[in-house]
Amino acid sequence: MKINKVNHRVKKTLVAVLLFASFNAFSHQDPLPSWNEGESKKNILAFVEKVTQKTSPDFVPTAQRVAVFDNDGTLWSEKPVYFQLLFAMDRVKEMAAEHPEWKTTQPFKAVLENDQQALAKIGNKGLLELVMATHAGLTTAEFRQVVITWLAKAKHPKFDRPYTELVYQPMLEVLTYLRENGFKTYIVSGGGIEFMRPWTEKVYGIPPEQVIGSSIKTEFQMKGADLALVRLPEMDFLDDKEGKPVAIQKFIGQRPIAAFGNSDGDLQMLQWTAAGEGPRFMSIVHHTDEKNEWAYDKDSHVGKLDKALTQGQSDGWTVIDMKQDWKRIYPFQLENN
Amino acid sequence: MKINKVNHRVKKTLVAVLLFASFNAFSHQDPLPSWNEGESKKNILAFVEKVTQKTSPDFVPTAQRVAVFDNDGTLWSEKPVYFQLLFAMDRVKEMAAEHPEWKTTQPFKAVLENDQQALAKIGNKGLLELVMATHAGLTTAEFRQVVITWLAKAKHPKFDRPYTELVYQPMLEVLTYLRENGFKTYIVSGGGIEFMRPWTEKVYGIPPEQVIGSSIKTEFQMKGADLALVRLPEMDFLDDKEGKPVAIQKFIGQRPIAAFGNSDGDLQMLQWTAAGEGPRFMSIVHHTDEKNEWAYDKDSHVGKLDKALTQGQSDGWTVIDMKQDWKRIYPFQLENN
Repeated sequence: MKINKVNHRVKKTLVAVLLFASFNAFSHQDPLPSWNEGESKKNILAFVEKVTQKTSPDFVPTAQRVAVFDNDGTLWSEKPVYFQLLFAMDRVKEMAAEHPEWKTTQPFKAVLENDQQALAKIGNKGLLELVMATHAGLTTAEFRQVVITWLAKAKHPKFDRPYTELVYQPMLEVLTYLRENGFKTYIVSGGGIEFMRPWTEKVYGIPPEQVIGSSIKTEFQMKGADLALVRLPEMDFLDDKEGKPVAIQKFIGQRPIAAFGNSDGDLQMLQWTAAGEGPRFMSIVHHTDEKNEWAYDKDSHVGKLDKALTQGQSDGWTVIDMKQDWKRIYPFQLENN
Repeated sequence: MKINKVNHRVKKTLVAVLLFASFNAFSHQDPLPSWNEGESKKNILAFVEKVTQKTSPDFVPTAQRVAVFDNDGTLWSEKPVYFQLLFAMDRVKEMAAEHPEWKTTQPFKAVLENDQQALAKIGNKGLLELVMATHAGLTTAEFRQVVITWLAKAKHPKFDRPYTELVYQPMLEVLTYLRENGFKTYIVSGGGIEFMRPWTEKVYGIPPEQVIGSSIKTEFQMKGADLALVRLPEMDFLDDKEGKPVAIQKFIGQRPIAAFGNSDGDLQMLQWTAAGEGPRFMSIVHHTDEKNEWAYDKDSHVGKLDKALTQGQSDGWTVIDMKQDWKRIYPFQLENN
């Protein structure tokens, strides 16, 4: 009886020790395992610590822990061109049978003939024409399905993998880490809002109401016997440059305390975040890994990074050097590590 | 020693019993104490029960539990005119010294002279002029402060109480009840988005990012040495009628499963909600209490309710009869009950 009692006590102590140990292990687990030790990782951890510790002079209440992320080039790749443009080009090919006039009309002709030289010259007007022809005319529900269907079969030309696998593992870890620390994470992208929403929850853990992007107008209509929101071939809002702070105010109604971007299109969003009161975190993903992704900045047509890099370096923003700071780029590279 | 032990056991049992009893009392507490027993209350409770019980065929996952609420006439009063118009009129009086031309220009002259006859005739164009003159030209931060300052001192002409006290206690209970059951509650109002955001969290428990409303354009500018979002005298979006489903898709990205309105301006939002798949809850607040609030519907200039009432009655939406269904209108009436 006495031995039993001792045994019982030993067991209880053992359980307590194990529980404490595992809790301890958990609490000391590295939240950013795909990041090399260095300034960038240190800055992220230090910022989150100081705004979440109740005794910290920089403590920020949960309701104000808003973090915004650009998408193209910040959360997933954007080369050889924005993935949404590749989607539009695939749509042109799919829809060509219904549009015989496209065989002889630019920019559609260039897409159908894979004419790289002509494609390089289509400019913003041509791009807009491609988007309107391929993104409008459907209901929002139909467009959602088109995006889902495309993503399920389309493969990236270089990596031969679905586009949604070309997201940055280190940034997924930042998103999760911030949310575990009471942050609300938002996408604020120049990309189409309804092009992103069908997959951001699954891929990034970001629900549709926290996705902000460029939009075309929609109209509430009777379609047959059904009500529908029909997508019109008319721009509603361009969520880029000066548009980003405007959209942040419109959708979120308060200023973020953390912002992540990668190009001059994100400069105003970063400046707007920086100009708020209290602790701030501004970060730029700098594409420096030519071997595993791409290396580009001020001379790139896609994701041009020039002024934002200059200001980031002079103002002490956290400039992430993908080659130096990241152990791996994509989630599928976890398999090999 | 033995007695002590027994005492200890009795205490422990007592504590357990008390804990259980209070838990039990809590779990059976009426979540809608300001509602009379009747169809409306029964319908709300039954809907929430069937969408939240995991074993129910009508179970809806938390991520899809989206409920939208009109504001004027649905969550707070809207008589004698929309409170935001009273705000604009007070602003005109405040700003009159800087605008000597208003003394001789309509609609400003009518406001400054309290000319009720002229005010009744200003129409939508006059209303828009009043809003632009009083809501634009400031930064978003400045406008927020103007709204807060006004609300702190302005009193309703009939009740002589701050406008934020003229919210409906039974609807506050519905908001809380829905949120406790995993719903996200949104305002979708024809009122100005930045007029509502400064106070909705405190008054309704609805944070700024869940407030959708009409808006004027803003522009990202350098103001002195500071960055600012400046409010421009130009309409951006009218969140009324067909605009409501459009705004719901834009801001939320999915269709609500519950919608509450009170006027024909909410009809399309209610129809859009009703037309979705799975369990739905559509409700209309019908103003029938002439003694404690106001009684009005199809002949009212503010909050006209005609087509929506007809469709609501024929389609089995929950039409809330304020006089019959509610024990009290405003929170301050709790003191007397």
